[in-house]
Amino acid sequence: MHTIEGGVTAAKGFLASGIASGIKKRKKDLALVVSLQECTFAGSFTTNLVKAAPVLWDQKLVAESKTVKGIVINSGNANACTGKQGMEDTKTMASLTALALGKSFGSESILVCSTGVIGVPLPMDTVTKGIGLCAKELKEGKEAASLAAEAICTTDTFSKEIAVEVAIGDTMVHIGGMAKGSGMIHPNMATMLSFITTDAVIEKSVLQQLLGNTVVDSYNMISVDGDTSTNDTVLVLANGMSQCPSLVPGGPYWDDFTQAFDYVHTYLAKAIVRDGEGAGKFIEVQVNGARDKKTAQTLARSVVKSNLVKAAFFGSDANWGRILCAMGYSGASFDPACVTLSFASAKGSLVVVKEGQPIVFDEKLAKTILLEKEVQVFANVGEGSGSGTAWGCDLSYEYVRINGDYRS
Amino acid sequence: MHTIEGGVTAAKGFLASGIASGIKKRKKDLALVVSLQECTFAGSFTTNLVKAAPVLWDQKLVAESKTVKGIVINSGNANACTGKQGMEDTKTMASLTALALGKSFGSESILVCSTGVIGVPLPMDTVTKGIGLCAKELKEGKEAASLAAEAICTTDTFSKEIAVEVAIGDTMVHIGGMAKGSGMIHPNMATMLSFITTDAVIEKSVLQQLLGNTVVDSYNMISVDGDTSTNDTVLVLANGMSQCPSLVPGGPYWDDFTQAFDYVHTYLAKAIVRDGEGAGKFIEVQVNGARDKKTAQTLARSVVKSNLVKAAFFGSDANWGRILCAMGYSGASFDPACVTLSFASAKGSLVVVKEGQPIVFDEKLAKTILLEKEVQVFANVGEGSGSGTAWGCDLSYEYVRINGDYRS
Repeated sequence: MHTIEGGVTAAKGFLASGIASGIKKRKKDLALVVSLQECTFAGSFTTNLVKAAPVLWDQKLVAESKTVKGIVINSGNANACTGKQGMEDTKTMASLTALALGKSFGSESILVCSTGVIGVPLPMDTVTKGIGLCAKELKEGKEAASLAAEAICTTDTFSKEIAVEVAIGDTMVHIGGMAKGSGMIHPNMATMLSFITTDAVIEKSVLQQLLGNTVVDSYNMISVDGDTSTNDTVLVLANGMSQCPSLVPGGPYWDDFTQAFDYVHTYLAKAIVRDGEGAGKFIEVQVNGARDKKTAQTLARSVVKSNLVKAAFFGSDANWGRILCAMGYSGASFDPACVTLSFASAKGSLVVVKEGQPIVFDEKLAKTILLEKEVQVFANVGEGSGSGTAWGCDLSYEYVRINGDYRS
Repeated sequence: MHTIEGGVTAAKGFLASGIASGIKKRKKDLALVVSLQECTFAGSFTTNLVKAAPVLWDQKLVAESKTVKGIVINSGNANACTGKQGMEDTKTMASLTALALGKSFGSESILVCSTGVIGVPLPMDTVTKGIGLCAKELKEGKEAASLAAEAICTTDTFSKEIAVEVAIGDTMVHIGGMAKGSGMIHPNMATMLSFITTDAVIEKSVLQQLLGNTVVDSYNMISVDGDTSTNDTVLVLANGMSQCPSLVPGGPYWDDFTQAFDYVHTYLAKAIVRDGEGAGKFIEVQVNGARDKKTAQTLARSVVKSNLVKAAFFGSDANWGRILCAMGYSGASFDPACVTLSFASAKGSLVVVKEGQPIVFDEKLAKTILLEKEVQVFANVGEGSGSGTAWGCDLSYEYVRINGDYRS
């Protein structure tokens, strides 16, 4: 497996486009991802009880449709908390897209995603015109993928793309993806918006199960602000156009494929955190020695979610007590008297607590380590062999500024 | 029941003092609350698995001691995550205080609380001298109570005191209290530090049960930053010196007393939120129409805890979608299609969602309402008769500034 240039069009037979339709004032806000052949597909969605209309639509398709043709995505408006009109508008987006792609497709072959402000009806005149224009722009190639990746962004400061190539027997298979953040990020079972395309040959039920396993270690292990969105969606399309051997769990190429698949999802999840609203630092928290993996993941997640830990990182302050405090209220079981804690970055590493006892450390070295843009926290709880890693960012003035006036 | 001037010395037979011992650079940092007669007592403590040494000490006393004589409290250092030395230092604080009060008391008659930075050993030379000096300053009267209330503060911008008088039969009974916030506030089962004294006659087991019920509706319903501290403690001392009829559940004066008792705790809990780190706004979220009280409280708490809701209030932005979103991920059950939401303040009120449908509202009026310092959110989920109220504050630049460099 190796990375290649590109995004959602890296896999054979996928087209994309992204345009400024007018939902936002100036920026790109509408994207299409379409496959030349019908795709098996999988989806993972927010656990928020309040689900946006497009989430409900996509869940229905995952349950009822065998294949899909593509995805239409708008940014600038989440179409969430928009009542009955919201569901009507989602259906209209699907049927308009199907119509633009050719008369043989029904609306149930188009997945729909929306992201942006909650509680405002979609401007459907604008969206209707936009879908027609966007369909005319559909192209192969990495430029088209980049336009789509740009069009799905909201407060993101950079677009997030990845593509890899992996040999499945004698066939090269491609997996490409794009995602958007960057606030209301505390995924639970799925996340924000992430779209993966592949030309692998894989059955729908197998793909769905694989995605379910992947989100646990990727999107579900990141947090920007602890708010689980109403629109979190991960969609995977597989059109089989590489004509590789069919991928089945336990089969000869399964591990190669899943490794590449996991890599793509984890890359995008981490990219979302790197671009967290107002984020100046990328924080990785690795918990080892827990009684099991779930315990380690719960502990790691609690640390990256803590406002006080995040604010301390903003100030490059080695306030490790807040880390132990956040582990303590996580609900996971461990013995504080056995914990060893250390900080690390490109500038070195430093043990601050050893088996529950605070260590007198060099504050200047601590500051030097923590002033880096990427910082790691290692916590060993000394109980077993469970490990888990979570990714987060600092809490900055900029986060407050962005979110104090998001709608304006 | 009516409020009177004063704090922890309002009840008969309670003395207090507060001094600057030198744990902090300049400010007051050591306080004593002592009763002339032995007290029945009750405590409620943090659910954080990482518990500060004084929390462990006080829990032992609640389990094993029948009565206590008083409380010693230091600010500027939490004595949390301080290993074995931390517990030794707590015991020393208790025994030094007992010694200063007279030879007939053992260390197990003194409760201990600490608040401040985590993970730094207490400067015991300074604390030892301080306890001797503080004991000499013990006095009756509201000035002494105010000095103690000041000495327990950390980043608090004002000290928090309350006193009430309630007639129990022919006897006037007094309840007084003080508390400190103002960061790492997301109590679960107890909170930060809060100290209540009363001259009521009440058995230890009855007092403990009453306190358990009270924290559910007061401290457990506030949030500043979602971080449950390692030191959260509520302590109640009752010395019986009013010689009122003994208070028992279901007895003739029980409702009068519990009403006053709840009032004092809720007042202090709300005061902590009003003085939340960096807080510019006080936010009350009232959920009605839930299937039961617990559901309503879970929904209300999730809203005041959301960073995105808090940041929207900072910007006086009527971004109600974030409120519905936070209710949605709370884990509590409700039907989003039945929710009615409104904002209110001294400047008026405004319905923004009616039975799940967004209402077009006057943005200027919304801004006028939300620019007030005290704002209310009403959510009716239209299912039953369960109600719950939570209190929180906005998320400001100032919160980030305070916590980006707390240790310096």
